[in-house]
Amino acid sequence: MSIEPSAPPATDRSDGPVAGPHGAPAERVAEYALRLGDDALITAHRLGEWIATAPELEEDVALGNIGLDELGQARALLAYAGSLTGHSEDELAYFRDDQQFRCTHLVCLPRGDFADAVARLLVFAGYQLELYSRLVHSTDQLIAGVAAKAVKEVRYHLDHGAGWVIRLGDGTEESRRRMTAALARLWPYVPELFDTDPLEQELVAEGVAVDSSTLEVPVRQRITQVLRQAGMETPTAPRVAGGARRGRPSEYLGLLLAEMQVLARAHPGASW
Amino acid sequence: MSIEPSAPPATDRSDGPVAGPHGAPAERVAEYALRLGDDALITAHRLGEWIATAPELEEDVALGNIGLDELGQARALLAYAGSLTGHSEDELAYFRDDQQFRCTHLVCLPRGDFADAVARLLVFAGYQLELYSRLVHSTDQLIAGVAAKAVKEVRYHLDHGAGWVIRLGDGTEESRRRMTAALARLWPYVPELFDTDPLEQELVAEGVAVDSSTLEVPVRQRITQVLRQAGMETPTAPRVAGGARRGRPSEYLGLLLAEMQVLARAHPGASW
Repeated sequence: MSIEPSAPPATDRSDGPVAGPHGAPAERVAEYALRLGDDALITAHRLGEWIATAPELEEDVALGNIGLDELGQARALLAYAGSLTGHSEDELAYFRDDQQFRCTHLVCLPRGDFADAVARLLVFAGYQLELYSRLVHSTDQLIAGVAAKAVKEVRYHLDHGAGWVIRLGDGTEESRRRMTAALARLWPYVPELFDTDPLEQELVAEGVAVDSSTLEVPVRQRITQVLRQAGMETPTAPRVAGGARRGRPSEYLGLLLAEMQVLARAHPGASW
Repeated sequence: MSIEPSAPPATDRSDGPVAGPHGAPAERVAEYALRLGDDALITAHRLGEWIATAPELEEDVALGNIGLDELGQARALLAYAGSLTGHSEDELAYFRDDQQFRCTHLVCLPRGDFADAVARLLVFAGYQLELYSRLVHSTDQLIAGVAAKAVKEVRYHLDHGAGWVIRLGDGTEESRRRMTAALARLWPYVPELFDTDPLEQELVAEGVAVDSSTLEVPVRQRITQVLRQAGMETPTAPRVAGGARRGRPSEYLGLLLAEMQVLARAHPGASW
């Protein structure tokens, strides 16, 4: 089993093997599904790091369940990407290196403290809610189906993240200080969520994808509203470069994958 | 908030503050609930270490769900123990040190490889199934209620662990070699599950608890049957001392608790 470092190619359209019912080449759709799926997969992994480690047992359960929701989304999307390119979901999860992953730098950031976790949950779930709410109308039936299921899940994730951000931001002096610091650390990674590129634009034209740049205003509005309830200012910070959609991975992804993939790589083939 | 190092005392009966409806002193019942709950809590933590790290994505989901089942059992049992001794479930989970935990050494063993994980799942779920099947008849209504819910969960856990042990034991030469090695590593820790002591015997007399020593034959029979299906021999190995029920913790528990408790201890009080 091997995944070519260059597969699926991100810009060469000529060798798209099959066109879907919506007319978009299968390889472009696969690449798009990978972007969504990788974000969900890495989020699930980071949330798993909280099992029995959150500050309350009730919260362990909540974060664990959110992680499993994201893992379910990741499986569906990776399986779809794999079906279009001749790979299994497990090959895509466990046998790509960091340059072949397409997840944003935001989801790759280290676990951090609990304020970091809930700040990221607020932002990422806010982004996913807007994204999936629109993808339910995708001309790609599978992506529309995944979105229809996921939109209910991420609405709960957002409520949960928002609840904690408000509780901590509007809590003690110490909790507010930490919540503020966590948001400041996260903020430079937010803009990448709203980057678009030619591949996405082609799929937007086919009705398959959503233009990420159009998500920015509603997502930021929603987050600002939550921060206002928490009595907090929306941070301002220059963006980091990002670029994970183009094979420029987060510096944190390599180590994360080393941990995530060691077992599957040590024993390739499903018999182990 | 502080948990006395000596509370709840394991042998001094004179100061039992309240007797339950079954006549057993509340502190003894609390200690028993802690034993069961701590086993489940530490198992949940170890299973959480597999999220997005198992050799298949499907398996990540399965182990994650099993971990959340165990976490649910732990919460109910720790909340009950706490209600009898004036602590919250979170205090008991996050503010006891390793000598105050009551979990067996088996559940504390490091995560190990995937064969270690499924070997432990087979043994521990087999033990829990026999235990909870009898505890549904406990004269303690809360313990009986927890057991009634848990028995359905652990039956699935056992099926899942058994399925993997058979698949790996009866698989390739390499998978069989690793399964054999994992069982050999685990085996010295199995006998402690069946240790009984005066506190348990008093609760058995009250109809609250199950005599752990009577679980050994049926549990070992069930495990041997699975190993036979896998074409494997039941290991023989001298037991390690164990003693966690008496405040002699596993050497691995301290590090595990350091990771599990750091956040709650850094920010005592529920406002963070």
